[in-house]
Amino acid sequence: MEMVEQKIQELLDELDFESVKELFSQLSGGKRLRAKLVLKIAGVNDKSVLLAAIVELIHAASLLHDDVIDEATTRRGKPSINATDGSKIAVMLGDILYSKAYSKLVFFGDEIAKTIADSVTKLSIGEMMDVKMGDEFNADDKRYLDMLYLKTAALIEACAKASAMLCGKNPHSYALYGKNLGLSFQIIDDILDITSDEKTLGKPAMNDFREGKTTLPYIYLYNSLPNDEKNRLKSLHKKDLSKEEIMWIKEKMKDYRSVEKSYEYAKKLSEEAKKSILDDELHKILDNLLQRSF
Amino acid sequence: MEMVEQKIQELLDELDFESVKELFSQLSGGKRLRAKLVLKIAGVNDKSVLLAAIVELIHAASLLHDDVIDEATTRRGKPSINATDGSKIAVMLGDILYSKAYSKLVFFGDEIAKTIADSVTKLSIGEMMDVKMGDEFNADDKRYLDMLYLKTAALIEACAKASAMLCGKNPHSYALYGKNLGLSFQIIDDILDITSDEKTLGKPAMNDFREGKTTLPYIYLYNSLPNDEKNRLKSLHKKDLSKEEIMWIKEKMKDYRSVEKSYEYAKKLSEEAKKSILDDELHKILDNLLQRSF
Repeated sequence: MEMVEQKIQELLDELDFESVKELFSQLSGGKRLRAKLVLKIAGVNDKSVLLAAIVELIHAASLLHDDVIDEATTRRGKPSINATDGSKIAVMLGDILYSKAYSKLVFFGDEIAKTIADSVTKLSIGEMMDVKMGDEFNADDKRYLDMLYLKTAALIEACAKASAMLCGKNPHSYALYGKNLGLSFQIIDDILDITSDEKTLGKPAMNDFREGKTTLPYIYLYNSLPNDEKNRLKSLHKKDLSKEEIMWIKEKMKDYRSVEKSYEYAKKLSEEAKKSILDDELHKILDNLLQRSF
Repeated sequence: MEMVEQKIQELLDELDFESVKELFSQLSGGKRLRAKLVLKIAGVNDKSVLLAAIVELIHAASLLHDDVIDEATTRRGKPSINATDGSKIAVMLGDILYSKAYSKLVFFGDEIAKTIADSVTKLSIGEMMDVKMGDEFNADDKRYLDMLYLKTAALIEACAKASAMLCGKNPHSYALYGKNLGLSFQIIDDILDITSDEKTLGKPAMNDFREGKTTLPYIYLYNSLPNDEKNRLKSLHKKDLSKEEIMWIKEKMKDYRSVEKSYEYAKKLSEEAKKSILDDELHKILDNLLQRSF
């Protein structure tokens, strides 16, 4: 992974614009899940390290724009670029990282380049859907999962598929693995927004619902509740919640096993991911994912 | 050009997300300078029409983000997307168009794809420079022109270069033509911001200076003025100007021939562009550019 970090710095150096390096250094690198996945699948070589660096630039760019969209002031416990330098700089920095990534992607040939570029289209459409869905309470789990696939899983799917292409493995199996990994990853993230505290998350807990995001546990809860309570839950959507209201939601989620059901769904997806590829290390990523507490 | 418009619609259809088509139809197509340039250089065939559509998607995406950055409420006399649908939607729509363009670009091979992708990096860096330069009064014409090259000319340069590559013409000569075309195009645009009225422009006149943009005529004026008047000009930077203040700037620009000098510089660039390619039609684009009044 050190080679990937070094490659990222090399790509930033090529931009020859000091502000970009400075701003990028303000970003927390995060778990580098996508880069790790690329190296796990394609092994460590010049091409795979470059691909890993590219997908991390794309992911960083998408988070920059995501934070502008969500008006998020923190990211991974650090102030977001839009909070410190303004949303203009965040939009432009994202554009610079995206275009740099695309410039490098062309050296991987049509198929790999198109796989990654298409996933960015999906990611952007997913983000737009997410914004539009936030306007009202969404109680449709299918619709939610479609959005989640586009917004989060498509890029991870593309990373796995492109890495398989790079080293002559079966792209379809790896794509399926990546897709299900991405979906379960995001569902676990959604669960942690409910079950973790602010300190662990690096952002306020139950932030998703406040922002208008009706994640899977809320959808399951809504569909389990009697009508009058359905309305109460709906009335709390996109509101600053009081302690009592948070307590009520958490109790009801406990009564109706909404978090457990979501976790079971993530686990089911993870099992499907395992079925597509027989690789202990890739199975371990899934196991760790399901066990993570932050 | 009708084939280009049709191709753009085809690309949008492929996105399979109705909102994108709706939003895109709200954009004014503009002069489609870049697409016309591609067809003029590379002729009309499947590949050139696709390339023309791609560069127009990229240009549209850059304007969407540009308007978010500049907090512009109008674009070509129509309300901007960030004004009607919010900056979130404008950012995402831009990302969707960019990524769609890149997905299609991969079919043109490494060199062309890289040429266009690199120009988008330049464009984004240029936009970021523009924002940063707007913080203070910039009196350095070299610095201004460097920014202009990145922000506006680089994409036009890339269009000309990629089109030449597509049909086996000399990419370097066409790149030079495109670069100088782009620079003189933007300088004329900057002049029109000063000399035209609101109705013709579709946005308030002398908007650039109000937004903090010290364009070439202002730089020339500043460097011609005596010290006390230099300070007066500086004090008006980034302000809502009164009628008297506007009058004062215009008079001083007349006294010191600031607009004429800018025009002469644009003309010089245009002559250089002509020297790089012997093609009557491409020369005509330059002549029309210098004569345009909006």
